[in-house]
Amino acid sequence: MSKKITASVVVIGNEILSGRTQDANIHYLACELTKLGIQLAEVRVICDDEFDIIEAVNHCRAKYDYVFTTGGIGSTHDDITAAAVAKAFGRAFEIHPEAERILLNHYKEKANKTRMRMAWMPNGAELIDNPVSRSPGFKVENVFVFAGVPIIAKAMFDNVRASLTGGPVLVVQTISSLDISEGMIGEHLRDLQDNHPGVDVGSYPFLKSGGFGVNLVVRGENKADVDAACEDIKVIITKAGGTALDQETEGDEF
Amino acid sequence: MSKKITASVVVIGNEILSGRTQDANIHYLACELTKLGIQLAEVRVICDDEFDIIEAVNHCRAKYDYVFTTGGIGSTHDDITAAAVAKAFGRAFEIHPEAERILLNHYKEKANKTRMRMAWMPNGAELIDNPVSRSPGFKVENVFVFAGVPIIAKAMFDNVRASLTGGPVLVVQTISSLDISEGMIGEHLRDLQDNHPGVDVGSYPFLKSGGFGVNLVVRGENKADVDAACEDIKVIITKAGGTALDQETEGDEF
Repeated sequence: MSKKITASVVVIGNEILSGRTQDANIHYLACELTKLGIQLAEVRVICDDEFDIIEAVNHCRAKYDYVFTTGGIGSTHDDITAAAVAKAFGRAFEIHPEAERILLNHYKEKANKTRMRMAWMPNGAELIDNPVSRSPGFKVENVFVFAGVPIIAKAMFDNVRASLTGGPVLVVQTISSLDISEGMIGEHLRDLQDNHPGVDVGSYPFLKSGGFGVNLVVRGENKADVDAACEDIKVIITKAGGTALDQETEGDEF
Repeated sequence: MSKKITASVVVIGNEILSGRTQDANIHYLACELTKLGIQLAEVRVICDDEFDIIEAVNHCRAKYDYVFTTGGIGSTHDDITAAAVAKAFGRAFEIHPEAERILLNHYKEKANKTRMRMAWMPNGAELIDNPVSRSPGFKVENVFVFAGVPIIAKAMFDNVRASLTGGPVLVVQTISSLDISEGMIGEHLRDLQDNHPGVDVGSYPFLKSGGFGVNLVVRGENKADVDAACEDIKVIITKAGGTALDQETEGDEF
């Protein structure tokens, strides 16, 4: 198999952990990275705490190809992500001239000390344009620092997408059955997974119209491997007395 | 201040990281723990990988008062959470007699090797009843192992809620303004936070009807501390020429 390209997401924000705000960025980034052939391998949600941010960023940037942080780059006292990322890299935390220019141009006579705090970044940071509220995100080495507001995080991801190097995009195929539950075929699925090391087989049972069914999701780099596993799954379902469908079935997964 | 009671959530599932499934448990547990006076301090989302599960569980159980895992306790080959938790604790992985009894009673003549795998647990595990699909979750020391399906995870949390020891439930009060943006009062908020060490002040700007506003959320153990900070916030907003509202304003937060 080709080298896997991996990523992690670090969500920074007391408001997520307290339940005040429901995160929307994890799922979005998971989907977008998967489309690019980048495997999201870990997510951490942490407090607005300097030590925690430094620890998470340094762990993730050493372990994964890409790190995306969301949250904590606003202008107020509770926005400490940029300063903490500077410390994580051992870089000076200083005014970024281009960010300063963008903010001055945006706020004009309303520019003040608070708003200009958003121009402070780790030395050598590369800006990520923010078309929504202007105040830029930034990148240091393999760490991308985004705002937490979903619309801005998405816009910032759009602006870096083309710069990311993905691996092979996984081929995904789902075989479902409405009249077989996973408990009836689990041992065969176990053998199937052993016999098809080039793919990952996930089993997702669901309830539909009062009956149990199962979605069997096969992921792999090569279409031929995925197709071969799917054919074997159809045989397993048929032998168990069920009907195999060549597609995902929507139901209440459990 | 009283001793903080802390918790972490470990979400286990390739399907969350690939974007196939959107997690719903983090937000639910964040809200419920907050209500109990338990501070959710960290969330990790990790793959169905034995090493990753062991590492996350051992990190979190040493650092936090409670750990809640979700996902990976079904019957198929991709459900490896229970075995990994046993390894994390260095305990034998074996059939739990009461879980076996529950599953046999539930499946009756349909009990088979696959379904009975859900009776395997770390030695000494305490069962957590699953009223939805019967197969129990379990607890080992301070680690609670729940199913990933939201309806079952919620039911399992309901069943352990009374056993959790919370700290003081934080008093939360929000002051908002529709005609002040955080950029206008940021330095005053910074001073305010310094002057009120007994509370945490979060600043959440929003857009409403084309204008900027801000929700200022004050959290603290003592109502008097929270009230005092809120009074000072009202003064800050008024001095800046705005109108302070004694409540949260709904808007598009960013």
